[in-house]
Amino acid sequence: MRDVAIVGVGMTHFGKFLDRGLKDLAREAVGAALDSANVDKKAIETAVVGNAAAGLITGQECIRGQVVLREMGIGGIPIINTENACASSSTALHLAWLYVASGMHDVALVLGMEKLYHEDKKRSFQAIGAAVDVEAMHHLMEMLAASAPKRESGDGGEGAGQKRSMFMDLYAMAARTHMARHGTTKEQFARVAVKNHLHGSLNPHAQYRERYSLEEILASPLVAEPLTRLMCSPIGDGAAAAVLVPADRARQYTGKPVFIKASVVGSGQDHGPDDPGISERLSRQAYEMAGVSPRDLNVVELHDATAPAELMLYEELGLCEPGEGGKLIDTGFTELTGPVPVNTSGGLISKGHPVGATGVAQICEMFWQLRGECGDRQVPGAKLGMCENGGGMIRGEAAALAVHILST
Amino acid sequence: MRDVAIVGVGMTHFGKFLDRGLKDLAREAVGAALDSANVDKKAIETAVVGNAAAGLITGQECIRGQVVLREMGIGGIPIINTENACASSSTALHLAWLYVASGMHDVALVLGMEKLYHEDKKRSFQAIGAAVDVEAMHHLMEMLAASAPKRESGDGGEGAGQKRSMFMDLYAMAARTHMARHGTTKEQFARVAVKNHLHGSLNPHAQYRERYSLEEILASPLVAEPLTRLMCSPIGDGAAAAVLVPADRARQYTGKPVFIKASVVGSGQDHGPDDPGISERLSRQAYEMAGVSPRDLNVVELHDATAPAELMLYEELGLCEPGEGGKLIDTGFTELTGPVPVNTSGGLISKGHPVGATGVAQICEMFWQLRGECGDRQVPGAKLGMCENGGGMIRGEAAALAVHILST
Repeated sequence: MRDVAIVGVGMTHFGKFLDRGLKDLAREAVGAALDSANVDKKAIETAVVGNAAAGLITGQECIRGQVVLREMGIGGIPIINTENACASSSTALHLAWLYVASGMHDVALVLGMEKLYHEDKKRSFQAIGAAVDVEAMHHLMEMLAASAPKRESGDGGEGAGQKRSMFMDLYAMAARTHMARHGTTKEQFARVAVKNHLHGSLNPHAQYRERYSLEEILASPLVAEPLTRLMCSPIGDGAAAAVLVPADRARQYTGKPVFIKASVVGSGQDHGPDDPGISERLSRQAYEMAGVSPRDLNVVELHDATAPAELMLYEELGLCEPGEGGKLIDTGFTELTGPVPVNTSGGLISKGHPVGATGVAQICEMFWQLRGECGDRQVPGAKLGMCENGGGMIRGEAAALAVHILST
Repeated sequence: MRDVAIVGVGMTHFGKFLDRGLKDLAREAVGAALDSANVDKKAIETAVVGNAAAGLITGQECIRGQVVLREMGIGGIPIINTENACASSSTALHLAWLYVASGMHDVALVLGMEKLYHEDKKRSFQAIGAAVDVEAMHHLMEMLAASAPKRESGDGGEGAGQKRSMFMDLYAMAARTHMARHGTTKEQFARVAVKNHLHGSLNPHAQYRERYSLEEILASPLVAEPLTRLMCSPIGDGAAAAVLVPADRARQYTGKPVFIKASVVGSGQDHGPDDPGISERLSRQAYEMAGVSPRDLNVVELHDATAPAELMLYEELGLCEPGEGGKLIDTGFTELTGPVPVNTSGGLISKGHPVGATGVAQICEMFWQLRGECGDRQVPGAKLGMCENGGGMIRGEAAALAVHILST
């Protein structure tokens, strides 16, 4: 297996774009990535495209990648369409990496794209809801009803009305368990949201660029105890792309390549003595593959679908000991000025979460950080970073998860 | 890149199973493949799952592979969900091959699965219709209307009523062009259907096992001139699976491994002087990769979505010269008793076409042929075979296509 480098990335702003379709979003992201890599579209030898919900939102179920790439004059090559719910495009990145690492192809394009906004918001939530075992939905709803402290009338992330994503109930349940077990407080969750909104305010690609105080986060409408709206990722539209080449050819394209030290994809399983849970298991695999430890990381992008999820991931990714995520956020460890800034992009909470685009958007941020191109949100001297992206849910755990470790 | 072998396959019968879901179909196919390979499910290191239409038929959009495999106790490993319309699971096979060929994993499962039958048949046709650029649908319908000789009232493949798949109109248009250009006759198309129904009558997995005379094929209800219903693939439900390992370990699993000599996936592009069309271009790549020529083939499974499509593929895959597909079928060249039998399984027309399962089902047939296990439809002494599987359509050509060459 060869070493692989990323030589260019590009992404759209994330946001609500009722007048833009997938083709338009994809064209912008791919065009920017090719420009960034100094690669002509004719040089692309394979493309892997991640998308989660186009079938339910736009009716474009099959050949989504071919449809958008052909419009840009990209065809003939293998075009692989993959989805793994919110981890669709990090899975696509893994496959693009595999194509290059194996020696099969020398220039691989990866594209993540999503349109979640629809004039009928019910369709958006139905699409997101398809990221669970839909046949087991009834069982899931019963479990949630039994767990809820009381039903709140508040709506869910970004004006969801009564049709909020069921995922928020699942995240809230996990957060309450963490509070009961480790004494974590709602204020600690809110600090995560304060941080990510602050970071997002510095990112021109972010969907929401407002800053909020701890009090404002706590006072925003309740979604499901302890989650308030400002602790939850919104729905959104967007696309992100990257160009991969063999590491030993990277400097033909750019003086500042970024190297993929680990690319790991996995799925959930029934926990046994050997399985600490999907995030911990796969991040350990990634550290081993890269030959590094959590202490070596300078910057992290992780899947903060909600603020409590980020806090729990601190523990699962090894940034702190189990149960100490609350303490970690209190010390400022993961703030932009701390030792290991997390979600400098604003994360899913502030940058936004067009699900099929999220995985590659994390890679865009990491690429820019490792090249020192992040302006006001730059982590000085960042040399090693991790991107963690989860997708779907089966039996209370991510159904799919991808971890990538990148270095200068 | 390492050589790769298939050491086991399994598939369900294809058919109309309103009372069976994807989980049930997948469990049967995967169980049969693991039994055939003498592989325990715990030994699987990665799984690639092809499905085209679950989102629109069952509402299960995301994490389809995880949902069905978790039910069988398969989890933890990378599970990649891929779709390329009717070529979804041959694309999945290509990725499983890439995982093993690259050295990344040693035991890969590939699964193709589809449920197209729904109590509301409109949903079935809507799902199949998503395999084109849905934004360009209006343009496509105008082109078809301009091309049709006259609108027939007959329904389309398998009782479609007025909601027949638009694909049948596209195939009919291509057939009329071939007739005008090369003098091909409707009777020659009908001979393809006679052959495939005869072959399917010998295949216990086939959806339709009736034999028909030339006259019966021609007299069946008109779908779109010159296509009659018995020249068209039906919709159906089913699943198929295979297990891949490195070639040098194959004999640990079976005394009769089947080797993958070429695995090629590609997409359509605007034809230029260098591009003879997707089927010809990719089959040439596959012959080159395998180091063989069309004359070396003993048996072929190809994408006979309609009988004229098979006849045209004879030319595109190099089984005969351009324009001579009609002559080839007249000589009996591709019959079970001919030099290169094509679609011994019955093909899509008779075996059936649950789209996401079709690619791996072709591989099942080829595996059995090369091991001499096809009973009454066995091609004596078959040593080298090709599987060609197309998917979706953009600008009148397959949007995706996969070619695999297998050998004893």
